[in-house]
Amino acid sequence: MSLLKINSFAAGQWVAPDANARGIDNAVTGAPFGLAGNDALDVQAMLDHARQIGSPALRALTFHDRARMLKALASHLGNHKQALYDLSFATGATQADHLIDVDGGIGTMFVFASKGRREMPDGHVYLDGPVEQLSRSGSFLGQHIATPLQGVAVHINAFNFPVWGMLEKLAPTLLAGVPAIVKPATATCYVTEHAVRIMLDSGILPTGALQLVSGGLGDMLDHLTCQDVVSFTGSAQTAFKLRSAPHILRNSIRFVAEQDSLNASILGPDALPGTPEFDLFVKEVEREITTKAGQKCTAIRRILAPQAQVDAVIAALSARLAKTVIGDPQAQGTRMGALVSNSQKRDVLEKARIIATEAERVFGDPENFDVQGADIENGAFLPPMLFHCADPDAARRVHDTEAFGPVSTIMGYRDLDHAITLVNRGEGSLVASVITHDPEVAREVAMGAGAFHGRLYFNNRDSMSEATGHGSPLPHMVHGGPGRAGGGEELGGVRGVMHYMQRTAIQGSPDILTAITRKWVPGATEIPAPAHPFTRTFHALGIGETIQTGPREITLADIEQFAQFTGDTFYAHMDEEAAKRNPFFPGRVAHGYLLLSFAAGLFVEPNEGPVLANTGLDALRFMKPVQAGDSIKVRLTVKNKTPRNEAYGEVRWHVTLSNQDDELVAEYELLTMNAYAS
Amino acid sequence: MSLLKINSFAAGQWVAPDANARGIDNAVTGAPFGLAGNDALDVQAMLDHARQIGSPALRALTFHDRARMLKALASHLGNHKQALYDLSFATGATQADHLIDVDGGIGTMFVFASKGRREMPDGHVYLDGPVEQLSRSGSFLGQHIATPLQGVAVHINAFNFPVWGMLEKLAPTLLAGVPAIVKPATATCYVTEHAVRIMLDSGILPTGALQLVSGGLGDMLDHLTCQDVVSFTGSAQTAFKLRSAPHILRNSIRFVAEQDSLNASILGPDALPGTPEFDLFVKEVEREITTKAGQKCTAIRRILAPQAQVDAVIAALSARLAKTVIGDPQAQGTRMGALVSNSQKRDVLEKARIIATEAERVFGDPENFDVQGADIENGAFLPPMLFHCADPDAARRVHDTEAFGPVSTIMGYRDLDHAITLVNRGEGSLVASVITHDPEVAREVAMGAGAFHGRLYFNNRDSMSEATGHGSPLPHMVHGGPGRAGGGEELGGVRGVMHYMQRTAIQGSPDILTAITRKWVPGATEIPAPAHPFTRTFHALGIGETIQTGPREITLADIEQFAQFTGDTFYAHMDEEAAKRNPFFPGRVAHGYLLLSFAAGLFVEPNEGPVLANTGLDALRFMKPVQAGDSIKVRLTVKNKTPRNEAYGEVRWHVTLSNQDDELVAEYELLTMNAYAS
Repeated sequence: MSLLKINSFAAGQWVAPDANARGIDNAVTGAPFGLAGNDALDVQAMLDHARQIGSPALRALTFHDRARMLKALASHLGNHKQALYDLSFATGATQADHLIDVDGGIGTMFVFASKGRREMPDGHVYLDGPVEQLSRSGSFLGQHIATPLQGVAVHINAFNFPVWGMLEKLAPTLLAGVPAIVKPATATCYVTEHAVRIMLDSGILPTGALQLVSGGLGDMLDHLTCQDVVSFTGSAQTAFKLRSAPHILRNSIRFVAEQDSLNASILGPDALPGTPEFDLFVKEVEREITTKAGQKCTAIRRILAPQAQVDAVIAALSARLAKTVIGDPQAQGTRMGALVSNSQKRDVLEKARIIATEAERVFGDPENFDVQGADIENGAFLPPMLFHCADPDAARRVHDTEAFGPVSTIMGYRDLDHAITLVNRGEGSLVASVITHDPEVAREVAMGAGAFHGRLYFNNRDSMSEATGHGSPLPHMVHGGPGRAGGGEELGGVRGVMHYMQRTAIQGSPDILTAITRKWVPGATEIPAPAHPFTRTFHALGIGETIQTGPREITLADIEQFAQFTGDTFYAHMDEEAAKRNPFFPGRVAHGYLLLSFAAGLFVEPNEGPVLANTGLDALRFMKPVQAGDSIKVRLTVKNKTPRNEAYGEVRWHVTLSNQDDELVAEYELLTMNAYAS
Repeated sequence: MSLLKINSFAAGQWVAPDANARGIDNAVTGAPFGLAGNDALDVQAMLDHARQIGSPALRALTFHDRARMLKALASHLGNHKQALYDLSFATGATQADHLIDVDGGIGTMFVFASKGRREMPDGHVYLDGPVEQLSRSGSFLGQHIATPLQGVAVHINAFNFPVWGMLEKLAPTLLAGVPAIVKPATATCYVTEHAVRIMLDSGILPTGALQLVSGGLGDMLDHLTCQDVVSFTGSAQTAFKLRSAPHILRNSIRFVAEQDSLNASILGPDALPGTPEFDLFVKEVEREITTKAGQKCTAIRRILAPQAQVDAVIAALSARLAKTVIGDPQAQGTRMGALVSNSQKRDVLEKARIIATEAERVFGDPENFDVQGADIENGAFLPPMLFHCADPDAARRVHDTEAFGPVSTIMGYRDLDHAITLVNRGEGSLVASVITHDPEVAREVAMGAGAFHGRLYFNNRDSMSEATGHGSPLPHMVHGGPGRAGGGEELGGVRGVMHYMQRTAIQGSPDILTAITRKWVPGATEIPAPAHPFTRTFHALGIGETIQTGPREITLADIEQFAQFTGDTFYAHMDEEAAKRNPFFPGRVAHGYLLLSFAAGLFVEPNEGPVLANTGLDALRFMKPVQAGDSIKVRLTVKNKTPRNEAYGEVRWHVTLSNQDDELVAEYELLTMNAYAS
């Protein structure tokens, strides 16, 4: 049988493995399967290609352009995913595992595409936080922005999710405007290679945006600069080796690490046998042990139950685990396929041996288990194994030894404080879960264990029908953890994009800030509108375009009428004496909603035109009461614009209401939807 | 003369220097001045003290408690600052320099106190970003939170700002709820020691919140865990040594570094001689060279001017620099005092020698300058020195050699792209400035050089009367930079507090999220209000307390009347056929402000009571049009509460308007100010 030749994609060329390429075995049969690696790969040419061609091309696009690109890529991958499933069985994974890897990866890309459109501007500068007032009169202001790094992201991925592992890093990287060089773990790099081929063949990506190293990276990391990022997922040992390189440290090169983690799940003190939570707990734990044969960085390695429930949990969990069908991952009924390789299997057995020095194996025997439809001798199969640690306080290895396979250890806790102490013995984990129906238990764990965890997952009868699972990192939420888990963060929506951008504090005049951010800042030049802005199309409207209305006097009759009409007869509007007793008011005042409504009456252009609707309003603050006899006028300025679809976009207006003495009465941001054509 | 004994404060005890203590000289006279260091310092006891006593005490406080503590500390320091001034002259600094160090540090603490009150909750959990919708029906949600690290912050500070350098790190650390161990640079640690004494003597800080190491840290860093942070300011060489320690790397211990930086200032292409910008540029550059005798991490080391203006800048700058009075820092007219030590002076001269291999010295001669009222032979004096580099493209050392003294190099640029290329040759800087009146020049520099800089400072005629200066890190804005500058960030308001907290992604049901965040989440339990919530005092109101109003029908007459009354005769409200042509509306619809106003009429309790005023409204979105014949009803729920002063606090209400079919019509957050007493 001829071996699969797994290529790299370097500086625009596919590069085949060379004579020194490493062999990869089929996880299920143990037979030689593929070859990857080429010592002659020109890493400097790859970096140059990314920096000189990929980076400028990506940076020329807006965030919305890049988001649309991600959406198209995700769709295209979705149309070609069957080939990825077919290829993935050789990694030992089942069809259910493929859904997590392939569909999970594509789904992650879709979420970033959506967040890029909804949460980022259609421009080149991302604004981080509000304008900061740095001066009394407002002539000098601050604003944090983020712009793309001008280098390349080197993604070093783990073997367990050859597709998701790539896409969960690639999506935020491309959205940031940064090209990537992907280096998958060699053991499963053929799946990644195929996914890269699908993406490149789509023609959706600019030249230089994506390159691939199948096999070793050579000395690529020694050629990085402060504009590059290494994003690493894998073992603590490899992470240490890479991040301690003097070149990385001397140049403060960003190194995002996601490594070992002894994730725990806590059965809440309230979740007694017979409750929905008890059954849910057993189900979630079983799932985390067997999915991907336990080769998941987020899998539950430590199971914490109230001392009194430990036996019940062992019994219930063992009963479920006993039903695990192990064998040919392509067969319909198989729950657990093979581990990725026999060397991985040996590593898990070695770690299980270490755990066994502190805990007793209460379920699963690696010397005695059934495999269906596959070769137990040559395939990398293992049964689920459950250990019980009777003295978790004295134990050390159960808290620090990650057996990266279907292995977990149960331990009892005395009370919630004890459970928190034990969970934190992981010294920094990606995730811990708590199955409880008691919100105060959740609060206590969040306060006590939050600082040791990147994610805390709570589930119970209220959420179980929609909960996404202890082990699933979601694109919306950060994935990573302190300490042993590597100290890195990925995903988390726009937070994940920021790893590939530089945050810069900008200080300057309102006009300077407006030019940089393309968002009008109070104090910046107001451009007199050439016609009523409501008569101007989305694209015609300029940032800073302004109208000032004439004044309208507010009469006591107005206040009376408004009160009666709306039913809002709050005493501050109706009763002079009572209003005077109120610390905010000098006497009877106009309703805030009266002011808003009259303001609209002052600035609205009544006839059909490009403004389609007032869709909302943000950050309204009433600053000074208005009394009968006062008059108000309105200033309306185009703050910024965001295209929303093919026909119209959102215009955000900065609105101020001032009185006859030019004192600010109210301030807000108004949202309208404006047509591209009139 | 007896030497000043500079103590440490360890585990609640002042510890005097021992026999191996290091000697510190007076910068101005070169005479022995003090002694610091004790080899017997028990670093493990210090860490235990902070973790076991300081940390729980600080974490028990709310953010507002800690903010009030900072404010009190800052006030107390302000009352005792004269002693700090008096002591600081021995460091070589002038009274103007003291203002930056002492008053600047106190001011930074005040800003954090204010931001803690205004931008953080009066609770224990900080919310990072909005609720994330993770499920279709909303029974499972996400929210990022931040909780304090449970360890200690070790602050390793530079010699140049013994007070500001401590306080700019201490303020965000304490606000986060984390105790600090401060290790100032030995050369000026006597000023820091005195500031620590003032703070400890105030009695404002809980036991264990603040400790001090005067002298060496011993092996303290080898005892840190993932709950600790090292925040370092100093040389790249020392940073490399500390951060490459295997213990730091293996445990992913946070290491925030602020180190070397070759900051640049660009004279804009538009800023010709004769413009206000040209004069401003010369003034800012001169100030950055001479303030603190150039011993500032943000000082301008590289001066970039259009090729044609280089001679004019050299002439104007030399004329200003020639007026620099160097000498006794206590004397009134002195502009520049001494460098911190003679060894620092030797280091600056050595670096100047390196720069001189690529640039010609055009102003200042270290062999020939005047010192007034002080001893030029023994004090650490230097004159300002200006170099001119004629070929900055070929040069390397002018872009990578930080002479930490009154030394700067001017170079010409051909066009703005060239200027950006040269600025970025710093390979990561804390700050660059651009003096320009052209907003598009600012935009271009931000896009081209933002990724290499932690801060970009723009100034011109519009902002110069209020601008805070190229070299001043502000508490509102991040301070730090990529690459050579260390890759760290400090300050930046709440961003700076986050370095001492752990961000955790929380997933769970609405009730779980509400319990953890103390902020009601849509979908969480609604607690029926025992009376109209407007009749209940701030403290009586419970999170989740809800009223539902009865319905009110909207008639065509209402719409007509509202239009005529307010003047808002937008066609969508007035003209059935025109409204139907609009993509958002099925026909004539009610005004959004009519709905808001009627909603208030439905929920307002008219009589005097604890609700004092409606102060604002956030995140209003109109979701479904309301037509004549529809009716609306309102649900009002207490979302969260924030005390504002001694008499009242802000209540944020979640409000929904729904129609007769229970469809959501509008949603918003309403702000009221509620009295503590009725």
